[in-house]
Amino acid sequence: MQSIAEQMAEKLKQIAVSEFFEQNRQILGFDTLPRSLLTCVKEAVDNSLDACEEARILPDIQVEISQIDSKDTYRVCIEDNGPGIVKDQIGNVFAKILYGSRFHAIRQARGQQGIGISACVLYAQSTTGMPTRVITKVAEKGYANLIELKIDTRRNEPAIVKDDVLLWNKPSGTRVEFVIKGKYLRNRQSPFEYLKQTAIVNPHARITLIEPDGTKTIFERATDELPRPTEEIKPHPQGIEIGILERIAKDTKSRTLLSFLSSEFSRVSTRVAHEICATAGLPEDMRVKDLTLDQKKALIDAFHKVKIMAPDPVCLSPIGPELIKKGLKNVLDAQKPDIYIQPETREPCVFRGHPFQVEAGMVFGGNLPADEPVQILRFANRVPLLYEQGACAITAAIENIDWRRYGLEQRGGKGIPVGPAVILVHVASTKLPFTSEAKVAIANVDEIREEIELALKACARRLKNHLIKKRRREHAGEKFTIVREVLPMMAEMCSRVLSRPVPDIRRSMTRIMNILLVEDTVEYRDNRHEIRVTVSNYTPKRQRFTVQIPLPENAVHEISQIKPVRDEKNRVEFEMGLAPSESAEVKIVLTGLKKDEYTRNEIYVTGVDPALLVGAEPPSGEMDIESLEVIEEGDESIPDVDEVKSDLDTDGEQKYSGGEKGG
Amino acid sequence: MQSIAEQMAEKLKQIAVSEFFEQNRQILGFDTLPRSLLTCVKEAVDNSLDACEEARILPDIQVEISQIDSKDTYRVCIEDNGPGIVKDQIGNVFAKILYGSRFHAIRQARGQQGIGISACVLYAQSTTGMPTRVITKVAEKGYANLIELKIDTRRNEPAIVKDDVLLWNKPSGTRVEFVIKGKYLRNRQSPFEYLKQTAIVNPHARITLIEPDGTKTIFERATDELPRPTEEIKPHPQGIEIGILERIAKDTKSRTLLSFLSSEFSRVSTRVAHEICATAGLPEDMRVKDLTLDQKKALIDAFHKVKIMAPDPVCLSPIGPELIKKGLKNVLDAQKPDIYIQPETREPCVFRGHPFQVEAGMVFGGNLPADEPVQILRFANRVPLLYEQGACAITAAIENIDWRRYGLEQRGGKGIPVGPAVILVHVASTKLPFTSEAKVAIANVDEIREEIELALKACARRLKNHLIKKRRREHAGEKFTIVREVLPMMAEMCSRVLSRPVPDIRRSMTRIMNILLVEDTVEYRDNRHEIRVTVSNYTPKRQRFTVQIPLPENAVHEISQIKPVRDEKNRVEFEMGLAPSESAEVKIVLTGLKKDEYTRNEIYVTGVDPALLVGAEPPSGEMDIESLEVIEEGDESIPDVDEVKSDLDTDGEQKYSGGEKGG
Repeated sequence: MQSIAEQMAEKLKQIAVSEFFEQNRQILGFDTLPRSLLTCVKEAVDNSLDACEEARILPDIQVEISQIDSKDTYRVCIEDNGPGIVKDQIGNVFAKILYGSRFHAIRQARGQQGIGISACVLYAQSTTGMPTRVITKVAEKGYANLIELKIDTRRNEPAIVKDDVLLWNKPSGTRVEFVIKGKYLRNRQSPFEYLKQTAIVNPHARITLIEPDGTKTIFERATDELPRPTEEIKPHPQGIEIGILERIAKDTKSRTLLSFLSSEFSRVSTRVAHEICATAGLPEDMRVKDLTLDQKKALIDAFHKVKIMAPDPVCLSPIGPELIKKGLKNVLDAQKPDIYIQPETREPCVFRGHPFQVEAGMVFGGNLPADEPVQILRFANRVPLLYEQGACAITAAIENIDWRRYGLEQRGGKGIPVGPAVILVHVASTKLPFTSEAKVAIANVDEIREEIELALKACARRLKNHLIKKRRREHAGEKFTIVREVLPMMAEMCSRVLSRPVPDIRRSMTRIMNILLVEDTVEYRDNRHEIRVTVSNYTPKRQRFTVQIPLPENAVHEISQIKPVRDEKNRVEFEMGLAPSESAEVKIVLTGLKKDEYTRNEIYVTGVDPALLVGAEPPSGEMDIESLEVIEEGDESIPDVDEVKSDLDTDGEQKYSGGEKGG
Repeated sequence: MQSIAEQMAEKLKQIAVSEFFEQNRQILGFDTLPRSLLTCVKEAVDNSLDACEEARILPDIQVEISQIDSKDTYRVCIEDNGPGIVKDQIGNVFAKILYGSRFHAIRQARGQQGIGISACVLYAQSTTGMPTRVITKVAEKGYANLIELKIDTRRNEPAIVKDDVLLWNKPSGTRVEFVIKGKYLRNRQSPFEYLKQTAIVNPHARITLIEPDGTKTIFERATDELPRPTEEIKPHPQGIEIGILERIAKDTKSRTLLSFLSSEFSRVSTRVAHEICATAGLPEDMRVKDLTLDQKKALIDAFHKVKIMAPDPVCLSPIGPELIKKGLKNVLDAQKPDIYIQPETREPCVFRGHPFQVEAGMVFGGNLPADEPVQILRFANRVPLLYEQGACAITAAIENIDWRRYGLEQRGGKGIPVGPAVILVHVASTKLPFTSEAKVAIANVDEIREEIELALKACARRLKNHLIKKRRREHAGEKFTIVREVLPMMAEMCSRVLSRPVPDIRRSMTRIMNILLVEDTVEYRDNRHEIRVTVSNYTPKRQRFTVQIPLPENAVHEISQIKPVRDEKNRVEFEMGLAPSESAEVKIVLTGLKKDEYTRNEIYVTGVDPALLVGAEPPSGEMDIESLEVIEEGDESIPDVDEVKSDLDTDGEQKYSGGEKGG
């Protein structure tokens, strides 16, 4: 008789990866009907964008979704102008799970796993029994191939149902048609939203969506420039683990340790390789195959002790601050936000041997809802992440920051803050650690989350700075009212009561203000941006200073009223000398920009005490943003309204003549 | 020269599933160091529990975690008394991903994928380069096998490093030792918490934990009974999709449609099979192999139109309300909660052909923190889920309910409610749709989330009922103060002021109260529970009624003071007749229970207007819980305190003699 252990052993067997996913398709993003439909669109569009970029073709992608019966059955067609797929690979690409070209390549791409598109084929056959139709044409051929296929899930092999050719009136491209169970919605997790957000971070793509009701939307490309092609690099030593090192050492053709180090790793020059060997206490000419486990561990330790350059960013393709700002404007201009915070693009970092780079942007104020959690826009390798926000490192990073310090509401200083803000985060990497094959949430890996936090804090500081300046300006505004309107009236009233002549209070007004006020306005008319900058000296002393105004490089500018001391493509500088109560104005006209292409920049002033500045900044570094925090308790540099009033109660001007106040 | 499409095709290749997971181990629960350590413990313990249950052995599992160098390296050993593993399968079980015994079996088990334990081996070799050591002994052999192994990730095959035998002083069992990078914590997501929660839902297991600092904790088994063994069933027709039907039809040995239906599916008798054929409009004797896609679709439609019994629950192993309550008590008694809400175990349902069953429990009040989000305890197939709460259907269900209706705080009626409560949810299924291979969050599938919501709402209604009764009792308490203390004093004062004799106000006191008050207390002394139930008639009429007191079946009870009219193992009944202002007391002594094994149950009273009852309930159905909502605006059945006072201001007793008031 069989023992229990033997009975149990008999049931053991290998499971095909396709069988596994057939039973666990929710892992791949096929859980609910609306999400399943979105996933089919997403996987095909991501593939099209990758293929076009790799072939250096400006993507032109059309997505058409139509309902083909009264119950939840849809036809989803995605057609691109990419390079096409050679015939003998069509079956494997579309109907073999874990089959792909980018898995071992260390460079940023949307698809890496060789799972996504085959998963859609599997989902179609599971829910409607229908094969997927692929039409694809490569540039050299005069005809296109038409293949209909399914996956043989027991063997993870393609099952070709139909094999034909046809004439296709485009140079090259691929069209894929799924018939699936789904549900078409138009909410924040819909194909429409997905394509809209895709367009934000892929401004070189033209994307057309035809919805089931026939509505056609074109997300027109905003630039004809393809992103810089990403280049493949070798693994970077920092963050390499013993398991990976063992495999690289097993596969290498190098014989000696020194040549191994300098040929198999990124950023390891011969000099660095010498240093690694010395630090690890290993002979440079020892054979790689002779390395023991402990010696390999010593190498790993040395990787962390020796100074090695950060990985070459050629493998990454960040979006960049300008495009992030532009993208956010496209989506959010209807809400008329107060400010698009200057986005932060961090330097590349390393996570388990894989370079990655984090970018963040923020929008604040205007008609954004003030009493709801902030909206989070998450992107990974230029792909919008619409699901599983709660499981994502981006969300974790946002929740970790005490946003109350930066001017947003947040219960207990933890969790998603509440306020009129949108936060955008993009993480680009050669290998992103997604929480599942559906690739909609980034795992909470310390290195990545910490970088996201740093990027967010940079934006948060800018937000706070904006809020402080706004409050300061409001504060200064209040004082203006007092000083310019109420004070003369009070002086007159007092003199009337006391039957004395009205004193000249201009000088004391200036002393009370004690600020250098910089005001700027921008008007757009007839394809020109007219910028006016007015500087008023409301301090009791003559001030000499330099005003620096940054300008966009891609515009032509023309200056009137004051001659600049420096006139460069991206900034102009003026020297000014103003007596107390004196003002000066500069006018700059920009031509060659569309309305949205110019946004007001910070104006910088040097030569005066930074504490006197209102409406401008000392050049970066001269004033620590953190130090501005005191304004929350009460700004020492600006005398209080009450103080001003009580001073007036006594003898007006005299009180201030004794010495400088404020500042 | 090669075309772009050809160049791209050359890079395409198959990726081994082990290579995929080596690069994406965060999917398997290996993201941060603390979580990776937990995952190793979890995968091994889950396997041990499954193996023991399958072999009908009471599990005795020891987990020992020790730090083996100053940096984050740990040895994690898990040893069980299970059936052991036959030698020629050790390699495959531990070092081949997607190799298992339960993938195709339709019955509830912790492990199903054949991924978990091999993933730990992979994690160990990736992070420390060390092989995993397995010692296992099957009952028939006099010795144990000792195997050290790694995974050859390029081929997904075991690489045996050491193969030996040793004597092992236990009848059978398995011990596995990983050396990994990790970090030992003791927070809400730690091995300690995991084992504690595992013990809650597996009271038949004895689990010992030895922590790195040497602390030894034994979670002793609370019962010697193994859970009923789960039996394998055939797929259930409801929820079967066309893709699965096609595969079953391809694999079947049945020739005719009728025999196919009645032999391949669960709950399809010949009668049901006849009905399905008729509904689908298909001849019963047609060959299965001749079915077209459209005919198969017609079958699927028929599966949903014909009445088919729910799947046989033999394949499932729910925890049951009593064990849920007991489990919650074990964890939460220190916080002295007000109430352990009676848990809800729903009937089994079907999701995509897989039966599943939902259970929920709730705890409220006491020292649980009142100003924090409620604590959520999630379980899937008796396994605690400690990570990715935000991505889980259980969390989504909780967030979907408007808890404000049931007495908890909740911003905007959405999201995790705030209040002194703990919510427990267990989902048991033959195939749970996890969001990733790490199996720590259940995908948000409508059928499952809706069942969870129903279970939660059942508990929520009980919570609300409790809160209403509590408020009612407080309300009645206020009246007691007025009526029993203040009223006589006021009567005396009034009579003194008016120089009239003090009136006898007892009858009017009773009329003002107008309640039948049931008070019960439980005391535990000398291994006995002493229950006292006092009933007081504070209505103006004589009342005849029956009092029913439910008792635990597994205790011996003894009744004093009043003779019951019914005396059964699980309840006693008394008939009472009380004049206005009269009281009666019953004493019941229970022996044979431990302190925690008795909890107060609802007392039921029949024969009086339910609106008069305070402290007891009409038997279920006689009063609609939802109708109790009115108490929130003001309980009509209880006169207002102000009303009572103003009545006294005039002529005291006389006013009430004219007729009945209240009720």
